[in-house]
Amino acid sequence: MNGENKIGTYKFVAEPFHVDFNGRLTMGVLGNHLLNCAGFHASDRGFGIATLNEDNYTWVLSRLAIELDEMPYQYEEFTVQTWVENVYRLFTDRNFAVINKDGKKIGYARSVWAMINLNTRKPADLLALHGGSIVDYVCDEPCPIEKPSRIKVTSTEPSATIMAKYSDIDINGHVNSIRYIEHILDLFPIELYKTKRIRRFEMAYVAESYYGDTLTFFCDEANENEFHVEVRKHGNEVVCRSKVVFE
Amino acid sequence: MNGENKIGTYKFVAEPFHVDFNGRLTMGVLGNHLLNCAGFHASDRGFGIATLNEDNYTWVLSRLAIELDEMPYQYEEFTVQTWVENVYRLFTDRNFAVINKDGKKIGYARSVWAMINLNTRKPADLLALHGGSIVDYVCDEPCPIEKPSRIKVTSTEPSATIMAKYSDIDINGHVNSIRYIEHILDLFPIELYKTKRIRRFEMAYVAESYYGDTLTFFCDEANENEFHVEVRKHGNEVVCRSKVVFE
Repeated sequence: MNGENKIGTYKFVAEPFHVDFNGRLTMGVLGNHLLNCAGFHASDRGFGIATLNEDNYTWVLSRLAIELDEMPYQYEEFTVQTWVENVYRLFTDRNFAVINKDGKKIGYARSVWAMINLNTRKPADLLALHGGSIVDYVCDEPCPIEKPSRIKVTSTEPSATIMAKYSDIDINGHVNSIRYIEHILDLFPIELYKTKRIRRFEMAYVAESYYGDTLTFFCDEANENEFHVEVRKHGNEVVCRSKVVFE
Repeated sequence: MNGENKIGTYKFVAEPFHVDFNGRLTMGVLGNHLLNCAGFHASDRGFGIATLNEDNYTWVLSRLAIELDEMPYQYEEFTVQTWVENVYRLFTDRNFAVINKDGKKIGYARSVWAMINLNTRKPADLLALHGGSIVDYVCDEPCPIEKPSRIKVTSTEPSATIMAKYSDIDINGHVNSIRYIEHILDLFPIELYKTKRIRRFEMAYVAESYYGDTLTFFCDEANENEFHVEVRKHGNEVVCRSKVVFE
């Protein structure tokens, strides 16, 4: 298999309702595009959700880390490339590059996925799937950003509390992965976004939350410009954790 | 000018994070696509925001009414067509058709736009713009849904109160038109969406709101399955009104 087929390339434009007050694409929308690209890339190679669902399997996003020199500006075209870096028995690492309108790489992302059996909710053996053919797509394209890190939050005073509403819920009945990103970024005052931009953003998805769940957000200022966030439901069950690094 | 160039046709797919728990495209995402199509169509014909901004003018959405027999399902392709129905001195009517994967028209939308001068914030004379050439694009394509109606809300007890956050704000510093749609649809319990779907959705945009504004939502159940919503800032200033008809 040649390298070309291993890397998926997808074009986008920064739409007006997808940019923030600075005119830059929002992290939530970029995350959405990345996850869509993951879906397109997997589907085109026979490992998409639709195919998997027939066999009662689905992909579950475990980690996402995005690091960027700049974000596309309103109306600018940009390109996302994605490829599989590693396949283990229970996880696969999928990486991304974000390329601006001039063909310059402006950022990268790393993601970690598991596959679960929809009946048992138990993880599936990726190396057993389709006779292990997923490893044929492994690609050594460079992704020069750090792997998702361990995130620890110590704050006991919630920064915000919200109730999961209709617009938060996806087809699986869960609060969707992108909404968490938006809710987390809404914790920070707009003044911060006026003088700084997000250099690195990480998510660790731990457990699902559902319609009507009360989500509490705990936030540590771990370093100057670095915030660690934990989202809990029912007061103490961890739903996800995030690291936001401004510059 | 032939009829073909008067109608713009744009293809989409219902992405996984753009569908609700029923697997149907959300009204907010459809609204976003419609407004993007309006932008593409206008830009391609020399009346886009980018061109206008150079002359210190911009389009302002005043009304939007969407009526649908069904919503595209997750991963389904669909098409949006848009054209200009009327041009008056201060307003223009732009209509839309939504076409499903099989080429069947599944819904229509109507929108009303004004143009303002960015310096004075005063409305511009559309018939004077580019020597009145915008009227060359007027098209008599049918749009068999009712025009946006007058919406009156009497409730004095707010159904919800939110504060406008970072993710709500667009490049103009205003709460973006699509976010209002999402916040309004979040007023209704998920049980309603389990047994009913939105047949018709209307928005009347009255005034802008800004970061940090406290938005209060007032809701009348005007008829069975019909809700009228008013969004106010600072307690009593109307920001927008909406009509939501379920079936």
